[in-house]
Amino acid sequence: MVTKLKRFLIGRPMKTDELTEEKLSKLKALAVLSSDALSSVAYGTEQILLVLITVGAAALWYSIPISFAVLGLLTVLILSYRQTIYAYPTGGGAYIVAKDNLGTSVGLVAGGSLLVDYILTVAVSSSAGTDAITSAFPTFHEHRVMIALLMILTLTILNLRGITESATILMYPVYLFVFAVFLLIIGGGYQWMTGNVHAQAPAYGVAVPGITLFLLLKAFSSGCSALTGVEAVSNAIPNFRDSAPRNAAITLIIMGVILGIMFISISLLAYVYGIAPKADETVVSQIASAVFGRGIIYYFIQAVTSLILFLAANTAFAAFPLLAFMLSKDRFLPNMFMVRGDRLGFSNGIIFLGIFSALLIIVSEGDTENLIPLYAIGVFVPFTLSQTGMMKRWITKKPAGWLLPFVINTVGMLTTLTITLIFLITKFSQVWMIFLFLPAVIFAFKKVNQHYRDLAEQLRIDLSTDKPEKKGSVIVIPVAGITQVVRNTISYAQSLSDDIVAVYVGFDEEEIKKMEEKWEEWNPGVRLITLRSRYRSIVRPLSKFIDTVEWKTSATDHVTVMIPQFITKRWWHNLLHNQTSLLLRAYLFARQDVKITTVPYRLKK
Amino acid sequence: MVTKLKRFLIGRPMKTDELTEEKLSKLKALAVLSSDALSSVAYGTEQILLVLITVGAAALWYSIPISFAVLGLLTVLILSYRQTIYAYPTGGGAYIVAKDNLGTSVGLVAGGSLLVDYILTVAVSSSAGTDAITSAFPTFHEHRVMIALLMILTLTILNLRGITESATILMYPVYLFVFAVFLLIIGGGYQWMTGNVHAQAPAYGVAVPGITLFLLLKAFSSGCSALTGVEAVSNAIPNFRDSAPRNAAITLIIMGVILGIMFISISLLAYVYGIAPKADETVVSQIASAVFGRGIIYYFIQAVTSLILFLAANTAFAAFPLLAFMLSKDRFLPNMFMVRGDRLGFSNGIIFLGIFSALLIIVSEGDTENLIPLYAIGVFVPFTLSQTGMMKRWITKKPAGWLLPFVINTVGMLTTLTITLIFLITKFSQVWMIFLFLPAVIFAFKKVNQHYRDLAEQLRIDLSTDKPEKKGSVIVIPVAGITQVVRNTISYAQSLSDDIVAVYVGFDEEEIKKMEEKWEEWNPGVRLITLRSRYRSIVRPLSKFIDTVEWKTSATDHVTVMIPQFITKRWWHNLLHNQTSLLLRAYLFARQDVKITTVPYRLKK
Repeated sequence: MVTKLKRFLIGRPMKTDELTEEKLSKLKALAVLSSDALSSVAYGTEQILLVLITVGAAALWYSIPISFAVLGLLTVLILSYRQTIYAYPTGGGAYIVAKDNLGTSVGLVAGGSLLVDYILTVAVSSSAGTDAITSAFPTFHEHRVMIALLMILTLTILNLRGITESATILMYPVYLFVFAVFLLIIGGGYQWMTGNVHAQAPAYGVAVPGITLFLLLKAFSSGCSALTGVEAVSNAIPNFRDSAPRNAAITLIIMGVILGIMFISISLLAYVYGIAPKADETVVSQIASAVFGRGIIYYFIQAVTSLILFLAANTAFAAFPLLAFMLSKDRFLPNMFMVRGDRLGFSNGIIFLGIFSALLIIVSEGDTENLIPLYAIGVFVPFTLSQTGMMKRWITKKPAGWLLPFVINTVGMLTTLTITLIFLITKFSQVWMIFLFLPAVIFAFKKVNQHYRDLAEQLRIDLSTDKPEKKGSVIVIPVAGITQVVRNTISYAQSLSDDIVAVYVGFDEEEIKKMEEKWEEWNPGVRLITLRSRYRSIVRPLSKFIDTVEWKTSATDHVTVMIPQFITKRWWHNLLHNQTSLLLRAYLFARQDVKITTVPYRLKK
Repeated sequence: MVTKLKRFLIGRPMKTDELTEEKLSKLKALAVLSSDALSSVAYGTEQILLVLITVGAAALWYSIPISFAVLGLLTVLILSYRQTIYAYPTGGGAYIVAKDNLGTSVGLVAGGSLLVDYILTVAVSSSAGTDAITSAFPTFHEHRVMIALLMILTLTILNLRGITESATILMYPVYLFVFAVFLLIIGGGYQWMTGNVHAQAPAYGVAVPGITLFLLLKAFSSGCSALTGVEAVSNAIPNFRDSAPRNAAITLIIMGVILGIMFISISLLAYVYGIAPKADETVVSQIASAVFGRGIIYYFIQAVTSLILFLAANTAFAAFPLLAFMLSKDRFLPNMFMVRGDRLGFSNGIIFLGIFSALLIIVSEGDTENLIPLYAIGVFVPFTLSQTGMMKRWITKKPAGWLLPFVINTVGMLTTLTITLIFLITKFSQVWMIFLFLPAVIFAFKKVNQHYRDLAEQLRIDLSTDKPEKKGSVIVIPVAGITQVVRNTISYAQSLSDDIVAVYVGFDEEEIKKMEEKWEEWNPGVRLITLRSRYRSIVRPLSKFIDTVEWKTSATDHVTVMIPQFITKRWWHNLLHNQTSLLLRAYLFARQDVKITTVPYRLKK
């Protein structure tokens, strides 16, 4: 049943050989890895306008230079990550770059911060997407948590099915979104050039009282939330078809160009259409309704926009398992993140991400807006560290023509560092948690690593000297009577050792005497030792006895306890047997040198 | 921690030798076993009046002859159970008597019906007691379920502590209740004889229109709810001090006399004080306030009355585990009901009763009034069967002077049968469930019995011919690499057998080749077999391999699979290891002939 359901949801298991077939083409990679970055044009411009409007509508023209600044930063980031891709062809996320150049601890800061960030991405994106739906259909508003959870479940299953299949499904909405935004840009541009725009744009270049550098920087940093998701490509290089680095670099640049055009165009359209942010309507919606009116094209744009917000969450589903795999390979996360599932994806990472983001949705009751600054800072910390790492690399290696890339990375580092600091200063009340969870995550990484190193040390063997040593063997068989089960167990024990003791625990003298007489009559060739239990416990006297045997013989012998266990024909039959054998097993398991053998006895009726 | 809490709640464990000390004196037995019976005077008279008032206040005088009829039935029951006690000195509940004389199936009807009934007793009594409290303190009304559950928890713990201790605690309220009711009787009788009663009693002996035989019988059967609990003494004979039957018989008669006097006196007082049942005040409360006014004595009577209703539940806690023990001894219930706990009580029965009555309270949300007729019929079915059994016994054995006891039992049988039928006819909508659960319980009894008989047959051994047979032995050791764990496991295996195979599951050819070379270099004296897993599963290829080994050798050899298992130093370390060994163990456990040995390896760090 469970297997069938799993087959239906996930698909047939795949052989390890099939792994290469799961690699991504550029077109599919763009769909899988860019939805997070592209979707941010849906709110990037608005974030800037929201800060500027606090001074007044006249200040909105500042959105144009700020947008160009963001565009500049985007260019720097894209160029920088392009460099990273070639420098780290097997996958160069912030974790790898920082670890490689700045040491493990810094790498862990970047990795931990990204790991938490991907969980936030899924939670924030899926609840934002839900908001878009419930704004259009208010009746669903009370079911928002359920809708967001369903979305996460769907994404989890899609990703468990495998990368290619989910890419195929996800391609259409991503390209539809790109199509829709370009439709908007072309339509809006055409209207503007033909002079059909009757709105009043704020005067450009007029100094506005109340504007401070701090405010402009804040607006800039808010606009930078449009850049989250850019790092996904460089993390996921191993997912690309050969030659992976080149394909990844091309994909990254295509994504950067599309993102840049869409972002700056929407900022420009917002300006020329004189649009100010409203509480109940998004900027994109305002532009769309101004350009096309509230017709079929408007609803198409809105629908595709809300869909892409959901899909942004999918980027994290592609990136998180890979990062977890890398951390796990370096022994900072449990082994399980290295295991490929039936469909060759890192299933445990996918499931882990699904569960934790779902928990976040449940705990915050679907209201994840306050998490957005935390989410943004969680991206800019690794950005900064990655750039710093690249700077160090250029300085250390000094390849031919290293100065230009060094300058690019330095500019990028300074900018992202500034944005991080602005976030910390202007939105401390929303991002202070980073000072809690980042140390906690890094502490966990170190603890896990310590355990694996201790383990390796304890398990290490010298092939030339550490050989198995043969010892003697004592077998202890607890018996509750003389039955076929006991006979079966003794038969088995006799095939392994000549030193066998049967132990019987009785509650009174009469019982014990009867057992001894019966044993003598049976005479199975095995000594019987009887114990009297005054407190009616079977486990305690037995384990005391086994202690004694162990104490006497452990130097020369292995002590094995053989526990017969019924396998009943129906589950409820288990209720009819005192589960002494399970209790005994659990009790004895806490001792190193007692080996426990379960001798199953299958009941036929 | 858990042990300490248990010690605190339950007390120190006791030796089996201390068992006799736990026997009850007559005085304590009366307290433990009679609270159910005695508490019913709190509502017995009222039940009769409630039926009569439907015709009119003039009909209330019929309560006097009906009460005498109930008294007569009580006498018959007491005499009958006195006979049973002597006939079955080791405990003669309805189950034993019916089984012994009328066959096992009839016995199971009686036993099953009582078993369910004890659960109902606890649920009904504790919620009735809660009602008494919340009537006095209406603020607690919304917490009724919680109060009832707390009461059940308290009773469960008291009973787990042991019979004597709970008896000591419970003695005071029971005797206080008896004292309070006699105070009421004497006070009321004195007032009446001194002519201080000014109430108008309905004229005695006047024919009332509308009175039918059916109605009178219904009133009679309602009054018979005062007789529930009478059987407790004869069930619990083994709990009495020696000589148990005599002590039990005396206790039974004392209880009968006290119950009879209290019941008939309250009926008489209710009549002479002209009391009619009210919705918001009990009959006993009306009498008490008429006799003493609403002073301290009135509140004392009310408090003690509500307390005794709680304690009625305790009767079931004394009776249920004993009956479960007897059914378990006869193999109709799981073994666990035969196990004596730390304090020598049948803990599992006590806990089972506590849990199921608590569930009943939760499901019915503390509103158990509708369960009362079901509860009453659940008592009268075994009454009838027990009487029938005794009749059969007299006829079969024909001891000297058997005619009188035979007549007593016959009268009793006919009366209880009639009451059962009246219940069925007049309250079918409330008691139809008995036709569901009684067959279900009996079906379960038979199923359990069948399993135990099948089991005994499969386990039976012929001491002279069925001896253990020595076979060969093959040991399979799954290895994941060459580590100290593997060395430790091979050392152990070599102490048991010379035929050992190590199995390695690799994911690709390279891995496998590396392992083979390393193994050759190590040369532990054990063959290595390598398997390639195309689907990255370790368990499946391993189990296929073990299948093959088993198929080849099972005729001549025992196959043992040795599974090394880490014992980590901290619980969370377990998260860092893929629990392949647990999976493998669970998977292999479903096969009869594979023995599974867990070789623990304790990590030191």
